[in-house]
Amino acid sequence: MQSTAYERLVAHLKRAHYLGTVAGLLGWDEQVNLPPDSADQRAEQLALLAELQHAAAADPAIGELLRELDSVAAVDQAVVVREARRDYERVVKLPASFVAEKARHASAAYHAWAAAKQADDFSAFAPFLQKHLDLARQEAAFLGWGDRPYDYAIDKHDPGLTAAKLTALFDELKAGLVPLVRSIAASPARPPAGVLQKFPVEAQRDFLREVTEKLGFNYRRGRIDVSLHPFCEGAGADIRMTTRFDADNPLDSLFSSIHETGHGLYEQGLPLAAQGTPLGQNAGMGVHESQSRLWENQVSRSRAFWRFFEPRFREKFPAQLAGVSSDELYLAVNEVAPTLIRVDSDEVHYNLHILLRFEVERRLFAGELAVAELPATWNALSQELLGLTPTSDRTGVLQDVHWSGGAFGYFPSYCLGNMIAAQLWFTVRSQYPELDSDFAAGDFSRLLGWLRTQIHEQGRRYEALELVRRVTGEELTPKYLLRYLHERYAPLYLG
Amino acid sequence: MQSTAYERLVAHLKRAHYLGTVAGLLGWDEQVNLPPDSADQRAEQLALLAELQHAAAADPAIGELLRELDSVAAVDQAVVVREARRDYERVVKLPASFVAEKARHASAAYHAWAAAKQADDFSAFAPFLQKHLDLARQEAAFLGWGDRPYDYAIDKHDPGLTAAKLTALFDELKAGLVPLVRSIAASPARPPAGVLQKFPVEAQRDFLREVTEKLGFNYRRGRIDVSLHPFCEGAGADIRMTTRFDADNPLDSLFSSIHETGHGLYEQGLPLAAQGTPLGQNAGMGVHESQSRLWENQVSRSRAFWRFFEPRFREKFPAQLAGVSSDELYLAVNEVAPTLIRVDSDEVHYNLHILLRFEVERRLFAGELAVAELPATWNALSQELLGLTPTSDRTGVLQDVHWSGGAFGYFPSYCLGNMIAAQLWFTVRSQYPELDSDFAAGDFSRLLGWLRTQIHEQGRRYEALELVRRVTGEELTPKYLLRYLHERYAPLYLG
Repeated sequence: MQSTAYERLVAHLKRAHYLGTVAGLLGWDEQVNLPPDSADQRAEQLALLAELQHAAAADPAIGELLRELDSVAAVDQAVVVREARRDYERVVKLPASFVAEKARHASAAYHAWAAAKQADDFSAFAPFLQKHLDLARQEAAFLGWGDRPYDYAIDKHDPGLTAAKLTALFDELKAGLVPLVRSIAASPARPPAGVLQKFPVEAQRDFLREVTEKLGFNYRRGRIDVSLHPFCEGAGADIRMTTRFDADNPLDSLFSSIHETGHGLYEQGLPLAAQGTPLGQNAGMGVHESQSRLWENQVSRSRAFWRFFEPRFREKFPAQLAGVSSDELYLAVNEVAPTLIRVDSDEVHYNLHILLRFEVERRLFAGELAVAELPATWNALSQELLGLTPTSDRTGVLQDVHWSGGAFGYFPSYCLGNMIAAQLWFTVRSQYPELDSDFAAGDFSRLLGWLRTQIHEQGRRYEALELVRRVTGEELTPKYLLRYLHERYAPLYLG
Repeated sequence: MQSTAYERLVAHLKRAHYLGTVAGLLGWDEQVNLPPDSADQRAEQLALLAELQHAAAADPAIGELLRELDSVAAVDQAVVVREARRDYERVVKLPASFVAEKARHASAAYHAWAAAKQADDFSAFAPFLQKHLDLARQEAAFLGWGDRPYDYAIDKHDPGLTAAKLTALFDELKAGLVPLVRSIAASPARPPAGVLQKFPVEAQRDFLREVTEKLGFNYRRGRIDVSLHPFCEGAGADIRMTTRFDADNPLDSLFSSIHETGHGLYEQGLPLAAQGTPLGQNAGMGVHESQSRLWENQVSRSRAFWRFFEPRFREKFPAQLAGVSSDELYLAVNEVAPTLIRVDSDEVHYNLHILLRFEVERRLFAGELAVAELPATWNALSQELLGLTPTSDRTGVLQDVHWSGGAFGYFPSYCLGNMIAAQLWFTVRSQYPELDSDFAAGDFSRLLGWLRTQIHEQGRRYEALELVRRVTGEELTPKYLLRYLHERYAPLYLG
């Protein structure tokens, strides 16, 4: 049987995709299982896979098939051809030697960053960061974005977004967010400190398994393990989430796990039959983050969620929660307090951490800021936005891993995701006013079903902004995020 | 800097090697971590890796470099070139389509075997086994061994061995073994049944970690996890062992783990700098098995070993061992009793299980036995050799996984390993009479050091039979295995 050009294209795309999933599994294994002295060997394996994946994605046969498929009738096939062309045109513009150089530098820079953070010494990391910036500019130039390297970095993670569009959104968000943060800071309401102590890890594990299953994660096609930093990796029928445990901070593990579950539900909801093609791929980092945030924040910090899960939580930890009232527990779930560390931040302050990073990246790429000046600028922006000045590089400019991998333009996705999540939230709640009673009964299937149809099953059919427009009937705006934060936190802190 | 032809050859070999290590890790993960409904996806990943590995190993550039390196002066380089040529000449003779077909069939046959075993129905597996036999004959023909397909299957696992050589060794072994087994069967001495009960898994885990570390396994370059069947996988700086736990059978877990540790010590002892080249590879399955058996049996079932570890074992499990005397414990460690199941067998009967499989494989390849006749032949041989007739296919012909993967010629390696282990054991003990006092003091470094120098660091320099001749000063013979079994078991059972 003769296969069609379209079928041959899909077979080529799947090759590159499966090589990517193998690299993903090795990355997961590196963080979950790798023996301490095996890192060099893993680096060799990953470098080889990166080279083979690049070769598979840049296979000239794909270019020929794309030319042959210039006018495809079927709508779905046209989406695949359009997006595959977009990917292919990018990948062939990057020389294999550049891909290898960048991968090698990312590995070296990661270790330099880890050592610099340990030693609390930004200057030891500075030359690696500078080289990453140079490589990012080179990459943009290869791709034909030489005059707009930061836009290229943003577009890589969220196609269609630009620094200008983000600036407009973020300025409006900041204008509404800063007064809210100031009011909460001035409020006397505070969760009682240190009331959640000595929660045995095994029981935490059982509880988060129950919660994440109820939310809809399919453990027959995925798992959860422990790693230093929680993440979600995998594709198709094998989604791997990680979490971490702290006996004296059970909510950290729980909400991290729910966050990763949001990512996992998105990946599990992508059409499995289209795996390896753009129709089976996610619509970018911002949309991905909207899914994790919606489940973590809008859903799981709600009264309705806790109406169902509080009795179960108390059943698992009767002694630990004996002296904690329902209101205290709910306030602990929704604690708002500034912190220097992004990943420890509550959802109100979180966006300010992103605005800081976006501003720094924007200036670096615009040539307004030199790498050597970065710590001072970081600290000044931290004081301005969060009201806190880092006491060290470790708790300041060196805190995040992203730049050590050359991942510029990635941070804005987090804030974009928060805005998208809130806008989706108001849309679905207007369509289904009964969601709160669903949650209070432990039923999350109506919400998940809606997300499946509206977001997950769309794959990469639409760019983030168009997807939001289609699903919510409105342009993306920060006003829903602001409205959500007010509705959730004003009664608790400004009541 | 211009790289030499030799350096370019090594770079090519390493590519194929690292692709093999990636496939190995995915195989490990499949047995340790894979979610239940992710198997199809894993099969896709493994098929792609097999194809890429074959392409890397059959790269015509290797052939050109090998021609260029026809006369290499340096001894080590000559070994690499010789063995690389042997590998290359095999791999290029196998068409990629055949490799893919065999891999696909192995995956289908594995699932068919698992279902047939579950259903206790050999006939459901028979056509898959027949196809594997056909493929094995085809493979031998591709390689130019069309007239000796079983010799090819044996040579694949143990270069230099043939069915005729094995028959001679195994006949002599059988002649000595059967009377020993009959005497032990007639002996009234028996370990007290069911005395080792309720050993908590966590404490078992701690104890086996202590034991395997003492033996010399480097956990900075390896780990141990749980899987249905214990195995050891990995290469270079990342060796993964697995075990399984049964609260009422702590010795099963302990000795399985020590067995895998023997494999792991061998892999960890191969020269890391030569990884990916034949000098960094093991000398075949028989030698590999000699290492696992030597640590599992000769070392860890000895009085001296238990002199050191018994107090530690009792410290971990004071209540469970309170009513068990030292002699009873030592008898339990060295229990001899026939069983239908190879993997549950003691080391005396174990070799009879292998002789059975060797005989069956030999007849199948010789055309003396049809697949449909296999259960009846198996059962008759089982009665003849073990004195037991299987009550079902599940406990008979379907018990082992090997044939479902088309791994013919593999079983003999186990028995070969037992013979090599015993011969090495008498050699090292004649050189170091103080080994027993080492062990009684918990020091295994002298033995490991000797194995490192004599066996591990040799890589694939010598074929198994030549390696044995060089290290022991004698041709391989079963007499040392027979002598060892007599010395260990006669005092216990024929006292």
